[in-house]
Amino acid sequence: MGLIVQKYGGSSVGNIKRIKRVAERIAKTAEQGNQVVVAVSAMGDTTDELVSLARAIHPDPPHREFDMLLATGEQVSISLLAMAIQAQGHDVISLTGAQCGIQTTQVHKKARIESIQTGRLNLELGEGKIVIVAGFQGINADNDITTLGRGGSDTTAVALSAALDADRCEIYTDVDGIYTADPRKVETARKLDAISYDEVLEMASLGAQVLHPRSIELARKYQVPLVVRSSFSDNPGTEIIEVNQLEKVSVRGISLDDNIAKITIIEVPDRPGVAFALFSRLAQEHVRVDTIIQSAHRNTVNDISFTVNDEDNEQALSITTAYAAEIGAERVLHDPDVCKLSVVGTGIAGNTDVAAKLFGSLSELGINIQMISTSEIKISCIVSQPEGLKAMQHLHDVFELGSSSPE
Amino acid sequence: MGLIVQKYGGSSVGNIKRIKRVAERIAKTAEQGNQVVVAVSAMGDTTDELVSLARAIHPDPPHREFDMLLATGEQVSISLLAMAIQAQGHDVISLTGAQCGIQTTQVHKKARIESIQTGRLNLELGEGKIVIVAGFQGINADNDITTLGRGGSDTTAVALSAALDADRCEIYTDVDGIYTADPRKVETARKLDAISYDEVLEMASLGAQVLHPRSIELARKYQVPLVVRSSFSDNPGTEIIEVNQLEKVSVRGISLDDNIAKITIIEVPDRPGVAFALFSRLAQEHVRVDTIIQSAHRNTVNDISFTVNDEDNEQALSITTAYAAEIGAERVLHDPDVCKLSVVGTGIAGNTDVAAKLFGSLSELGINIQMISTSEIKISCIVSQPEGLKAMQHLHDVFELGSSSPE
Repeated sequence: MGLIVQKYGGSSVGNIKRIKRVAERIAKTAEQGNQVVVAVSAMGDTTDELVSLARAIHPDPPHREFDMLLATGEQVSISLLAMAIQAQGHDVISLTGAQCGIQTTQVHKKARIESIQTGRLNLELGEGKIVIVAGFQGINADNDITTLGRGGSDTTAVALSAALDADRCEIYTDVDGIYTADPRKVETARKLDAISYDEVLEMASLGAQVLHPRSIELARKYQVPLVVRSSFSDNPGTEIIEVNQLEKVSVRGISLDDNIAKITIIEVPDRPGVAFALFSRLAQEHVRVDTIIQSAHRNTVNDISFTVNDEDNEQALSITTAYAAEIGAERVLHDPDVCKLSVVGTGIAGNTDVAAKLFGSLSELGINIQMISTSEIKISCIVSQPEGLKAMQHLHDVFELGSSSPE
Repeated sequence: MGLIVQKYGGSSVGNIKRIKRVAERIAKTAEQGNQVVVAVSAMGDTTDELVSLARAIHPDPPHREFDMLLATGEQVSISLLAMAIQAQGHDVISLTGAQCGIQTTQVHKKARIESIQTGRLNLELGEGKIVIVAGFQGINADNDITTLGRGGSDTTAVALSAALDADRCEIYTDVDGIYTADPRKVETARKLDAISYDEVLEMASLGAQVLHPRSIELARKYQVPLVVRSSFSDNPGTEIIEVNQLEKVSVRGISLDDNIAKITIIEVPDRPGVAFALFSRLAQEHVRVDTIIQSAHRNTVNDISFTVNDEDNEQALSITTAYAAEIGAERVLHDPDVCKLSVVGTGIAGNTDVAAKLFGSLSELGINIQMISTSEIKISCIVSQPEGLKAMQHLHDVFELGSSSPE
C-alpha cells in the first residue's frame, strides 16, 4: 500500500496487445491498494517516424515546432493506455506534460524540469483515479510545449516520484534489470538484485543504457527508491539504492562503451591556459569531453588526448582542428576505433588489488592501454575497439562476476 | 492588405508534398502584405487511423480520452506546416487549440466554441508571424482538450475570423467552389461565383457537403466574408455573402441528399401531445429529425412520417418502435431507400412558377413525391432513392442552371 510511480518505455507500449498487457499490470498494482501514477513514452518507433516527417519538410526543423510535433507521440500512447485501463473497469485519466504541471526551462529539444505543480495530479489521485502522464514532455514559461531529450521519460517518472514523495518508482523496460555486463556480449552475465545510484550511474553512462544518467542523478538527489524491471515478465528486477544498504562487494560489473572516439593534438605549445581554452570552446558548443590525458613531450610542447561520444565527434574534431591551427600545434590525430572498458564497484578506489588484477589481465591478453581514468567507484581504460569485447569477457571471469551457468 | 484567415482540410495537407504546396500559398498571401492566420485539419486519413486504434482497445472509448487522442492529428499537421513555412523564410508559429485560447463547452467529441481569448494570437501577429492554429479542437474549463465534431475545422476558421474581425475567411478544399449541383452527378453543373449564407446553408445541409452548416451559421451570425476555393488550383472559388449583394436569381442550385431514411408510425392515437412527446424523446437522444408529415387517417388515428440522417437511423428506429408500443400505435414502417431532392434559391417562396415547374417536371418523369417541405429559399421533395439522380439531372436542365457545355 502506497503511492507507486511506474514508467513504461516505447517498446513496452509498442502495439495494441502490449498496451493491454501494460494496462493489466497497472490495474493489478491499483488492485493491491496502491495509488498509481504512470509515465509513458511514445509507442515503439513513433518518435523516429515523426522525426523523419519533419526532416522531409525541413533540413533543420525549428526546435519549437519539432517539440510540438514530437509531443504528439506520448499524447497518443497516454490516451490509448487510459482507454485500455478504463476497459478493465478502473477510473483513470491521462494528462499531457502541460496538464500535469511539468514546468521546464525555456530551451527546446533538451529542456530540464524546473518544477512540477502537483495540483491537478493530487486532485485526480484524490478522486481515486489512476493517472497516466505523458513522459518526455513539459511546458515552459511561454506556455510552449518542450521535450526533455534523451532519457526524458525516465526523468519524468523520477521527477514525479520526487514531487509526490512516492514510495517507489518502477522503471519498466525490455530487459530484466541491470547486469554485471551486457548479456548480449557476455554469456555468463548475471542480473544484480541491487546496485547503488553511483554504481548504476557509471554502468549507464558507460554503455549499459538501461537507465539514462540524468534520471539516476535526479533519483539520487531526491533519494527516490528505484526499481528496474521487465514489462514482459514478473521477475523482481534490480533495486537501485543507497550504497550503505548494499552488501560489501568490490567489483559489481564490467561495462564497455563502443561509441567513443579519441582526438589527439600533437605538440601543443606549453603555455598556461592552452588546454583550458580548448576545453572551454568544446564546452561552449555542448561537446561532452570524457577522459583527458596531457603528456609532457619535450620541455616546450605537450600532447593532449581526449575522448568524446561518437555523436559529438565531428563537431569536436572541427573545433579542435581550428584551435590547433590558431595556437600553432603540430597536427591533430583522430581515432574512432577505440572503446572504453570500465570496472565498476563501490570501494574500488581503496582496493589496489582491483587495479593490479585489471592491468595484469589486460597485459596477459597483450592489450595496450591507451588512456586510464579512475574515480571512487570505477577504473576505465581506453583500448582499441577490436580488443574491447575480448577484454570484457575475460575480465568478467577474472573478477568472478558470472553465474555458474549462463542464465 | 488585411487580415486573412485560411482553412485547409485534411486532403489539402494529406502528404509532405501537399503540405509544401499549402505552405507556398500561405507564404504568397503573407508576401502580398497580409497578416495570415491558418486553421488546419489533421493530415488525410490520420483521424480515421486514430479512431481505429482507439476501437481496437475499447469498444466505446471514453470521450475525454478519445479527444485527447484525436487532437494529436492536428498537432502533427500544424507543426509540419509551420516547419514548411519556416523553410520558405517566413516567421511562423503553430498553436494548439488550447494555446490559441479556444475555449469550448465541457462536452467531449462535439464541443462548441464559447469564446476565443485572442491574447496570444494578437501577440504573435504583432510580432509579424504567420499563425498556424490546430482546427477542430479547443480546451474546456477543466483544462481538458475537447474536439468540435463534424465540420470542426471550418468552424475554427470562421470563429477565428469573427474573433479577429478578419477581412476574409478562405476555406480551401478539394473542390473549386460551390456548384449548381454535385458535378459528379450532373455533368453540366456550373460553379457559382457567389451565393448567400442562407442558400449555401441549404445546399450544405442537403448534401453539397463543401462546408459544414454550423460553420456557415456562425459566419452568417458574425457576418464573416467567406470564400470557398480549391487548394489545388488558382481558380477564384465561390464567395458566400449577404443575399442583398447578390444578383436576383430565383433558383440557384439543385441538391440531392442520399443519406436519409424515412420512418412512419401507422395509426397513432389522435391525442394532444403524442407527436410532441415522440419528437422530444428523439431530440433528447440528439437524433436530428428533418422533414415531418402528419396525415389524418380516420377520426381517431393519424400516421406520422419523418426523415432522419442515416447515422441516426438505427437509434431513431429503436426509440420510435419503443414509443409506438407504449402508445398503442399499429406499427412502425421503415424505408431507407429514399432521398431528398431540393431546389434552392432566394425568392423561391414568393415565386409560384418554381413550385409549379418542380412538381410538373417530377410528374412528367412519373416520380411519386412522398413528402414535401418548404422554406423561404427551398422546396424539398422526398422521393424514392433510385429516382433521385434522374430527377436532379432533369431539374438542372429545366431550371436552366447548367453551363452550355460541361466544364
